[in-house]
Amino acid sequence: MQSEYNEIKVTPRILMGPGPSDVDPRVLRAMATPLVGHLDPEFLEIMNESMDMLRRLFQTNNVLTIPISATGSAGMEAAFCNVIEEGDEALICVNGVFGQRMTDVAERCRAKLTLIEADWGKIIPPEKVKSVIDKQKFKVVAIVHAETSTGALQPLEEIGRMVREHDSLFLVDTVTSLAGVPVKVDEWLIDICYSGTQKCLSCPPGLSPITFNERAMNAIRNRKSKVQSWYLDMNMIERYWGSERFYHHTAPISMIYAFHEALRIIHEEGLENRFKRHRLNASALWAGLEAMGMKLLAQEGYRAPMLTSVGIPEGIVDLNVRKKLLGNYGIELGGSLGELKGKAWRVGLMGHSSTKRNVLFFLNALASILSEEGYKIERGLGIDAANQIFNSIS
Amino acid sequence: MQSEYNEIKVTPRILMGPGPSDVDPRVLRAMATPLVGHLDPEFLEIMNESMDMLRRLFQTNNVLTIPISATGSAGMEAAFCNVIEEGDEALICVNGVFGQRMTDVAERCRAKLTLIEADWGKIIPPEKVKSVIDKQKFKVVAIVHAETSTGALQPLEEIGRMVREHDSLFLVDTVTSLAGVPVKVDEWLIDICYSGTQKCLSCPPGLSPITFNERAMNAIRNRKSKVQSWYLDMNMIERYWGSERFYHHTAPISMIYAFHEALRIIHEEGLENRFKRHRLNASALWAGLEAMGMKLLAQEGYRAPMLTSVGIPEGIVDLNVRKKLLGNYGIELGGSLGELKGKAWRVGLMGHSSTKRNVLFFLNALASILSEEGYKIERGLGIDAANQIFNSIS
Repeated sequence: MQSEYNEIKVTPRILMGPGPSDVDPRVLRAMATPLVGHLDPEFLEIMNESMDMLRRLFQTNNVLTIPISATGSAGMEAAFCNVIEEGDEALICVNGVFGQRMTDVAERCRAKLTLIEADWGKIIPPEKVKSVIDKQKFKVVAIVHAETSTGALQPLEEIGRMVREHDSLFLVDTVTSLAGVPVKVDEWLIDICYSGTQKCLSCPPGLSPITFNERAMNAIRNRKSKVQSWYLDMNMIERYWGSERFYHHTAPISMIYAFHEALRIIHEEGLENRFKRHRLNASALWAGLEAMGMKLLAQEGYRAPMLTSVGIPEGIVDLNVRKKLLGNYGIELGGSLGELKGKAWRVGLMGHSSTKRNVLFFLNALASILSEEGYKIERGLGIDAANQIFNSIS
Repeated sequence: MQSEYNEIKVTPRILMGPGPSDVDPRVLRAMATPLVGHLDPEFLEIMNESMDMLRRLFQTNNVLTIPISATGSAGMEAAFCNVIEEGDEALICVNGVFGQRMTDVAERCRAKLTLIEADWGKIIPPEKVKSVIDKQKFKVVAIVHAETSTGALQPLEEIGRMVREHDSLFLVDTVTSLAGVPVKVDEWLIDICYSGTQKCLSCPPGLSPITFNERAMNAIRNRKSKVQSWYLDMNMIERYWGSERFYHHTAPISMIYAFHEALRIIHEEGLENRFKRHRLNASALWAGLEAMGMKLLAQEGYRAPMLTSVGIPEGIVDLNVRKKLLGNYGIELGGSLGELKGKAWRVGLMGHSSTKRNVLFFLNALASILSEEGYKIERGLGIDAANQIFNSIS
């Protein structure tokens, strides 16, 4: 019998939105490896190697450093629900959608919340955190490293020291930053750190890398109540990923194959080279966009190289441009969320998508489309400015 | 730079444990399709087709019929945490590990629990359910269709009618049964039903198909408190899978490609053919095992064709046999969980793994290994009995 639906056919895309990013064909190929069981000795070895490579990416020695079997948002939930018990005090820094999401998640864990807010696109000033934690004790202080809704890159080191001095747990979202800029979990005194696979790791969405240090694990082991999520309970997940290999849930085998290969590619390139590549391509993109008269929204000096928020010029209709980019060029560009919706685009240069070719291709395509849409611009300005950056370093 | 780890190499396996099952190469190939964005019009179409094919598999018209972005255990959690609020009364039927897990999950949702228990391997008698719900009102009555820890297959129709008469929500785990035996969500008056992809659907682990009818959705929409899991909150997930396409979390694109292809394969074969194939291969396996003097543990007349629990003969050491099966034949067999640990094996004939070839291959391999291990047996008995079944229908 024929199914009435055809096999999947997709048009080739260049993924330059806020994620997923393009995936190296090696990762796709690894993912298509035939399955073994989730307790197969060969699979256990793949798990061990993945943990080791993930530790080096997070720059940590934490034993519990694993991919959670769900996407980055589940990592956020796992981070909060394991350490928060009813009535615990949590301080959450909010300067975009993902900080807001933290408050929603923490509230559902029955935390008592205190917020520090900053304008979207601006960072949270460390002294603001200091003034709050000097007055009140918190179990958890949470912050987003690279705010995916704005492209602001938050400095963490100083806040990490202050939080440790106050003996709170420092919980950091690195969904967008990990593998694109340094994330030094141990050096920066981060206690709980989670990420996603579909941004700078350039692995398909579906896993959430996470790491807990001993301080965090002690908080979890000494809970009075059970973790409210069975699926994300680290007390049990630790026993599967650790030497005990106790069955918890069936691991997503194929996704972990992909994850293993994505990590191999990252360490082949080398972390420093990878961060440099992200910085260079972002600098060229920024120079190009600014030469075209467009405005970068994240605070200068604190821009995340993997995700750029740029204002939509007056009179230009968001969706018209994005539809043309996708339809005529196969380029996926991100719209914006929350208060920036319709006012800004988000350009991703993440992992495998962060290439000189993509920067040049995108700037040319955008210049053409903006001209068609009536934006007055001399076509070559953007590409010339970008090329100047590329040429200056070669 | 070279990574110190090599690319993944795995030994070919025949997956005959309790899941994952073998995956059709077509599914692996579909999974390796290059990524598009999770809001790409082409991806939205793939989502729509997947929902449609999943509805036909669940035999339901429920609008909210989707794969959750995490494995089957997260499906269990989503089922409970969306409808249960603190203090709600839940009746849970327990005759194995997954019924027990339900009690743990429901407790973490702060339900008040009442249990109906049966011996492992036995079904829950419908009249037992009746006697309890006649006396007390429950918000939810939960039961496992095919108990993966024992291989017992629970009849649902009568219980479904009783639960509806009492105006409770009927919550059913079909992780192991779906796509191997009929699961008639609408006809059996099931309100909430979840499954996993890695058993009879023969798609890699990583998603949990789930369906909620209008009665269940009304309970969710009329909650007094927020769903405690942000990641699994159906109020929000419904808005992404529905026409609104509201961003919630990044969908696991590649897994959904695989899911789409696995569903296509299921409907090409046709549900009735697929169920018949599972029954036939199980009958042959059972005849073979019994001819070898081994004991099937699930109650006669209520055995799940996709998962067979068989007692380990006296004097035979569980792990010795499973290691030889894996090492010499590449066959993965399941050990047992909970009170059956070390006393029984679990033989899976799920989805793509349910073939005549696998039955014959396995019975021969098992006979050889058991002989080596000192179990007195005439080698050909099992295979002859199985062949008799196969020949009788051809």
